[in-house]
Amino acid sequence: MSNFRIEKDTMGPVNVPADKYWGAQTQRSKENFTIGGQLMPKEVIQAFAILKKSAAYANTELGVLPREKADIISRVCDEILAGDLDEEFPLVVWQTGSGTQSNMNVNEVVANRAHVLLGGNLLDEKKQIHPNDDVNKSQSSNDTFPTAMHIAGYKIVADHTLPMVQKLRDTLHQKSQEYMNVVKIGRTHLMDATPLTLGQELSGYVSQLDHGMRALRNTLDHLSELALGGSAVGTGLNTPKGYAELVAQKIAEFSGLPLRTAENKFEALASHDAIVETSGALKQLAVSLMKIANDIRLLASGPRSGIGEIIIPENEPGSSIMPGKVNPTQAEAMTMVCAQVIGNDVAISVGGMNGHFELNVFKPVMIYNLLMSARLLGDACDSFDKHCAVGIEPNYDVIKRQLENSLMLVTALNPYIGYDGAAKIAKKAHKEGTTLRQAAIDLGLLTDEQFTQWVRPEDMIGSLKD
Amino acid sequence: MSNFRIEKDTMGPVNVPADKYWGAQTQRSKENFTIGGQLMPKEVIQAFAILKKSAAYANTELGVLPREKADIISRVCDEILAGDLDEEFPLVVWQTGSGTQSNMNVNEVVANRAHVLLGGNLLDEKKQIHPNDDVNKSQSSNDTFPTAMHIAGYKIVADHTLPMVQKLRDTLHQKSQEYMNVVKIGRTHLMDATPLTLGQELSGYVSQLDHGMRALRNTLDHLSELALGGSAVGTGLNTPKGYAELVAQKIAEFSGLPLRTAENKFEALASHDAIVETSGALKQLAVSLMKIANDIRLLASGPRSGIGEIIIPENEPGSSIMPGKVNPTQAEAMTMVCAQVIGNDVAISVGGMNGHFELNVFKPVMIYNLLMSARLLGDACDSFDKHCAVGIEPNYDVIKRQLENSLMLVTALNPYIGYDGAAKIAKKAHKEGTTLRQAAIDLGLLTDEQFTQWVRPEDMIGSLKD
Amino acid sequence: MSNFRIEKDTMGPVNVPADKYWGAQTQRSKENFTIGGQLMPKEVIQAFAILKKSAAYANTELGVLPREKADIISRVCDEILAGDLDEEFPLVVWQTGSGTQSNMNVNEVVANRAHVLLGGNLLDEKKQIHPNDDVNKSQSSNDTFPTAMHIAGYKIVADHTLPMVQKLRDTLHQKSQEYMNVVKIGRTHLMDATPLTLGQELSGYVSQLDHGMRALRNTLDHLSELALGGSAVGTGLNTPKGYAELVAQKIAEFSGLPLRTAENKFEALASHDAIVETSGALKQLAVSLMKIANDIRLLASGPRSGIGEIIIPENEPGSSIMPGKVNPTQAEAMTMVCAQVIGNDVAISVGGMNGHFELNVFKPVMIYNLLMSARLLGDACDSFDKHCAVGIEPNYDVIKRQLENSLMLVTALNPYIGYDGAAKIAKKAHKEGTTLRQAAIDLGLLTDEQFTQWVRPEDMIGSLKD
Amino acid sequence: MSNFRIEKDTMGPVNVPADKYWGAQTQRSKENFTIGGQLMPKEVIQAFAILKKSAAYANTELGVLPREKADIISRVCDEILAGDLDEEFPLVVWQTGSGTQSNMNVNEVVANRAHVLLGGNLLDEKKQIHPNDDVNKSQSSNDTFPTAMHIAGYKIVADHTLPMVQKLRDTLHQKSQEYMNVVKIGRTHLMDATPLTLGQELSGYVSQLDHGMRALRNTLDHLSELALGGSAVGTGLNTPKGYAELVAQKIAEFSGLPLRTAENKFEALASHDAIVETSGALKQLAVSLMKIANDIRLLASGPRSGIGEIIIPENEPGSSIMPGKVNPTQAEAMTMVCAQVIGNDVAISVGGMNGHFELNVFKPVMIYNLLMSARLLGDACDSFDKHCAVGIEPNYDVIKRQLENSLMLVTALNPYIGYDGAAKIAKKAHKEGTTLRQAAIDLGLLTDEQFTQWVRPEDMIGSLKD
Repeated sequence: MSNFRIEKDTMGPVNVPADKYWGAQTQRSKENFTIGGQLMPKEVIQAFAILKKSAAYANTELGVLPREKADIISRVCDEILAGDLDEEFPLVVWQTGSGTQSNMNVNEVVANRAHVLLGGNLLDEKKQIHPNDDVNKSQSSNDTFPTAMHIAGYKIVADHTLPMVQKLRDTLHQKSQEYMNVVKIGRTHLMDATPLTLGQELSGYVSQLDHGMRALRNTLDHLSELALGGSAVGTGLNTPKGYAELVAQKIAEFSGLPLRTAENKFEALASHDAIVETSGALKQLAVSLMKIANDIRLLASGPRSGIGEIIIPENEPGSSIMPGKVNPTQAEAMTMVCAQVIGNDVAISVGGMNGHFELNVFKPVMIYNLLMSARLLGDACDSFDKHCAVGIEPNYDVIKRQLENSLMLVTALNPYIGYDGAAKIAKKAHKEGTTLRQAAIDLGLLTDEQFTQWVRPEDMIGSLKD
Repeated sequence: MSNFRIEKDTMGPVNVPADKYWGAQTQRSKENFTIGGQLMPKEVIQAFAILKKSAAYANTELGVLPREKADIISRVCDEILAGDLDEEFPLVVWQTGSGTQSNMNVNEVVANRAHVLLGGNLLDEKKQIHPNDDVNKSQSSNDTFPTAMHIAGYKIVADHTLPMVQKLRDTLHQKSQEYMNVVKIGRTHLMDATPLTLGQELSGYVSQLDHGMRALRNTLDHLSELALGGSAVGTGLNTPKGYAELVAQKIAEFSGLPLRTAENKFEALASHDAIVETSGALKQLAVSLMKIANDIRLLASGPRSGIGEIIIPENEPGSSIMPGKVNPTQAEAMTMVCAQVIGNDVAISVGGMNGHFELNVFKPVMIYNLLMSARLLGDACDSFDKHCAVGIEPNYDVIKRQLENSLMLVTALNPYIGYDGAAKIAKKAHKEGTTLRQAAIDLGLLTDEQFTQWVRPEDMIGSLKD
Repeated sequence: MSNFRIEKDTMGPVNVPADKYWGAQTQRSKENFTIGGQLMPKEVIQAFAILKKSAAYANTELGVLPREKADIISRVCDEILAGDLDEEFPLVVWQTGSGTQSNMNVNEVVANRAHVLLGGNLLDEKKQIHPNDDVNKSQSSNDTFPTAMHIAGYKIVADHTLPMVQKLRDTLHQKSQEYMNVVKIGRTHLMDATPLTLGQELSGYVSQLDHGMRALRNTLDHLSELALGGSAVGTGLNTPKGYAELVAQKIAEFSGLPLRTAENKFEALASHDAIVETSGALKQLAVSLMKIANDIRLLASGPRSGIGEIIIPENEPGSSIMPGKVNPTQAEAMTMVCAQVIGNDVAISVGGMNGHFELNVFKPVMIYNLLMSARLLGDACDSFDKHCAVGIEPNYDVIKRQLENSLMLVTALNPYIGYDGAAKIAKKAHKEGTTLRQAAIDLGLLTDEQFTQWVRPEDMIGSLKD
Repeated sequence: MSNFRIEKDTMGPVNVPADKYWGAQTQRSKENFTIGGQLMPKEVIQAFAILKKSAAYANTELGVLPREKADIISRVCDEILAGDLDEEFPLVVWQTGSGTQSNMNVNEVVANRAHVLLGGNLLDEKKQIHPNDDVNKSQSSNDTFPTAMHIAGYKIVADHTLPMVQKLRDTLHQKSQEYMNVVKIGRTHLMDATPLTLGQELSGYVSQLDHGMRALRNTLDHLSELALGGSAVGTGLNTPKGYAELVAQKIAEFSGLPLRTAENKFEALASHDAIVETSGALKQLAVSLMKIANDIRLLASGPRSGIGEIIIPENEPGSSIMPGKVNPTQAEAMTMVCAQVIGNDVAISVGGMNGHFELNVFKPVMIYNLLMSARLLGDACDSFDKHCAVGIEPNYDVIKRQLENSLMLVTALNPYIGYDGAAKIAKKAHKEGTTLRQAAIDLGLLTDEQFTQWVRPEDMIGSLKD
């Protein structure tokens, strides 16, 4: 007995594994694109399940698909959403640039599985549900794939990336509040500068993430526009009247996301600026997180010959050769993720810029990179939060010692003796390795009492008091 | 008689050209950074002029600077804004990463020019206005330079980029309306597809630009936040109470832009995510414009052996060897600009990610690239609009011929004879080089009358009628 | 009975799945880095197997490890190379930036599996082989991981990428030879230009790939340098004399690749410019292949309303809605791969630039992207070759028609009547829709006979004959 | 009297400034492309001068141009090379993508200036030298512009970038030798690690630059290939036999560079992978220099609360508010340059990938970015060398203190007491803030004498002695 059955499409018969639901077009793609191995992301497949179910019921309501067909299509879609058919989607990202083959993969699996659920046999030549005429009814790959892109992209950003960034932001905010009065040396150009508090320093990171999340949320409006109803080239050919709006409502309902039909379907097929836009915001967050993670590892550097002003959790032995070494590994994972997201953004830009006429055919590579970036950033924020940020503590001894040593406290004297005089004091202290106080007195620029009164780090962390 | 005079700073004396207002620190930078030759953008210098004037009056109102000093500082700033002192800012982008030297350049020029305006002589050892203690009062390079970045960036985007993109968008919209009923062949995967109208095709570009402008405007809120008042490390050291808010009001007033003080000054000095954010939106526009310009040159390709469906203006002889050749040169300039903007965005990301502690020291390279991108995109849209878009016309003969030839009109038959039957017709016509009508009749799938009734390109440019 | 056993490292005990060989540090990493899901590439694990085996025997020869230990270590390494232990390497890319955890994963699996092979039990507290003191002997993660990067990177480029690019190049070369005399219209600026042959056009692609492969091979010298022997910071601490050279020889032997010890180990740990260099060459190939694939799909566009000068294989139905449509899907997969490779190159640059002091800690993300790019480019060339390039055929009818129509044949008249006169002819013919011949005669610039003699496309595909 | 004269081209008359040599096509471009203001780089214009002179003499030798014409063309070219006609090239980068307008700018200026040198008047309708038929003889913009790109690119890399990188490399090498015995703490993951010498640390940078220069030199072979002789589409139409080789010889002679004719002219017009390749190598150097400059500023950080192990020159006051502050400004300029070069590389990739058929029309943007990158890197290396690297000195006190404090010296004990025992010592010392020696003795793991004998930093900077 054979392990294959024969499936047909408009190009003729193909051997398909006997135990799989997919059909001829899926099989052709599987054989014609043995590239890389990166599967079409599961998020896209799940988005397709929502889409096919929504389309089926919209078609039914508009009178172009019997309710029984919609019901059985919907039932298979629910199986896909439950993860029961995960093995049925073997296609890679590097296929046709419209994602047609993954659309057909879904169409074929739904049709054949529905046929079986209806009591049919996979070997039946004529199936009760047709992948194109039923499952794909009122649709084209050209409008379904970008719709699935937007569903999947919106969902991961809203349900994963934003909450995870928020979680890290909240931890940093709590730490910022907690250490708002821990005065420490500031650093500009990596050089000693006037003081600020550890809480103030951390508040800058919080503000970065707040702005980054706002920027990311700003992109969701564009991402909420659905191409479905545009059909092959954006005109809506072969779709029933009112279909675009109705199917978007159903998708919104089944996904729980505030999605709506795109006002202009021509754009929605021919370009994916919404993906470019969201990726740009993810890239911005990556830039922010790179800075934050970098600062934190520098602040934690040492333990004895670095900056060493904060202590971060020790999660694992750091070295296979240096005993007792502990490293800022969460910062490293985070910054590697940021590098990837920044690279992915370029890949998405290259895809976005190269559409032609009525269709952009870099769809799979664009959504692959977007989902990867959104997933990685969310995961990395979660990991960094749990395994690093929550455990940040000041190293009070180091902070105190470095603050007292600082030559830049001299800045507090500007309003009293002017910039040039203050510079003389700092230079003298630096050259002779003495304290600012000593140098100031030696130069006769102020008295011991004045120094005590004017140079107070704890008074240097806000604007001048009136 | 010497062509130099001696100026001093805290490091000692320096020879400065006798006829220039700048001082020791400007001169040091000029000598220490002979790199590249790209001057600090004039937009930044102008923003500094607004800033110094605003700071002077804010200081006066808060009682820390005599009004006479504010008035004379303001007078020099107005000269800078009028372009009268353009030769006084010789420093390049590739200097200290805080832009301190350009801040000092402005401070020195303002102080020395003010001294002269007050009747002093450049050779006077003691000037009536001090570059640090007066012109830079209540300021640091660390908060002035990013403030100037935001003023300059906001201004160019609001006053130049957005209006120019809008102008091109309006032209394309007008063309879209004008040709909304010109039915033509669609193309997906670069292959013949179902029809749409030229107006519909153009409307996709309009929608792209609308979304792009919205994305760009979304970034202005972040860009409207001013660092000024943060002083050296964000704490506001040496600034009078209420200064940050007041100086922001003055800047808003003098610039005519809706700018305000940043809620968190630590972020505003240590990172420039606002620049990253705006650049990301400019990059998105570049991605869109690359697609649009590319489509337009493909649509205009020929004249005899290309797509040739539109005619664009002939602006200049196209070839130094091929007589009579005309090329889509505006599309070429536009796409080159887009390439640059996409590259600039990466440069900005690299700068943005590499800040340390209280200061990002990639300020000059970030604002240089942002201003370049904003300027180039605005200029290119203006040029493309004037010299290309306004002249776009359909080539009706070509459009008609290609539409009639199209095999993809067969798609209209799906609802009547199903996808598989329609595919047979298309394949037969393609193979035999005949018309769809002939193939359909030969296959016995429909009658001549049915074909006439069902396959009507003009009925294929919207959804099914009820 | 428990499904876990307890393993210990210097930080204490950890629960490890009872049926796995890995130990405490692997388990910690698995729990601390639940990010993304991208596993450390198998190529890296395999490279580690070669490395550990080589190190063991080098240690034995230098008298610091008993031969029996080397033999059993080697035996486990062979199992890894055979793929028998694939389930034992569960760590993701997004871990510590030194890759220490994957090094320890290998150390632990080798030690524990060796212990079992020697008759021990995984539950034994004391194992006969120690992951650090035996398997990692004379090594540090800091020199092993970059060594594994170079082994894996060199291998995939030499064994996969280069041969696959060569294969595609050879097909294009064969096609170029075959169609060297098929004269067709040329196109510059997408506009009709003077003729060339299809073979000449294809020869440009061949030359691009030849240059690209040369550039890629040029990078292999840097990639052949191995960090091993540098130990923790590049000094070779705790390695026996002569070790670096000996272990490199063994790696070269076991891998079959011309690898050698790096002259400077400090660079080899602290930066990965060799990865940057190779990625740069892969990016160049991506740029080339993007152009080539783009040209081919444009040349194949149509079938009736495009350029249509070549025919490419029909591999699958192209559309889920447009019956009979065939698309250039291999070109689409190729160009998507190119977009990814170009993005990956930026990710690698970001990683490469951000090393600190004695160690670059973006190692995993750098090798992940390099291997992905090398794999994808090789696979895509293979796929494009097999499913597209081999089947390229001229569409003689279209080629002939478009050649005859071309106005740019007028260029042949420059030497006879000058550029300005020739321009007049072309412009007149274009304006009036006539032939060049007609326009030339009408203008009285040459005779019918002269036209026949001078304007011969077949004479315009090389330099002037003497 | 008018300030304009009338010039004509095949499109009709144009007003041209009376005092300029350029003609109608230059003027059209100037008016049609008011974008950005970045002029076509002078290096390209100078390369054109070499090219036009070479072409003229090649034409003469091959009998298609009178020697007198070649002589006068050559004379004008020499004026251009001398910089006498710098004001005659007003066109911007953002023009036609073939650079045709800059080619015509050169043709027109040479023709008109030659006419004047021959005694003619700019107002003469008929000039003695024709811009197309004489100056552009046997040429097309399509082969001249890429030839000028290669001449200019090769020249700047060979004459500027490489020597300047070498100079910096030599300084670092000299410093490396000088401080080869200064033992200091190493750092991995930014954390304290086993020692190395300052000289060893610097040697890593030297090795990076050596590899980077080798990579850059590897690209020169591709860059040495000249497109000239390809004419309009690569076929060499309208060029005399032997011309391509002869003109390349002349260019090599006049430029002093080892340039030669490209084997495949179709590639040389249609793609600019050579530019992509060289830019890739410049990007690699930027990645290296970013790491090096970053390390140096971190090593110099402080003066009291940073790493502080080296001292770098104080070149200027560092702060407009913090008196006495000195910053690593040369490192900042360098890293900003690196950010730009990395961005430029992406712009070049975008240009390189988007060629169509016989011509890449991103020529100006590609060479603009390449020249900018090559210039900036060379200048920045020169500046960093002169103003920073030459002055690097160890801060011996800091180095000694940090070395003695280091817990990672414990690694020296691995061969004696094993990794686990050594880890116990390090952890105890870290926890209790004691010395390693104390912790070791307290744990009873070794004696005071053994510690003295085994833990010797000066013995830890190379492999184990036999």
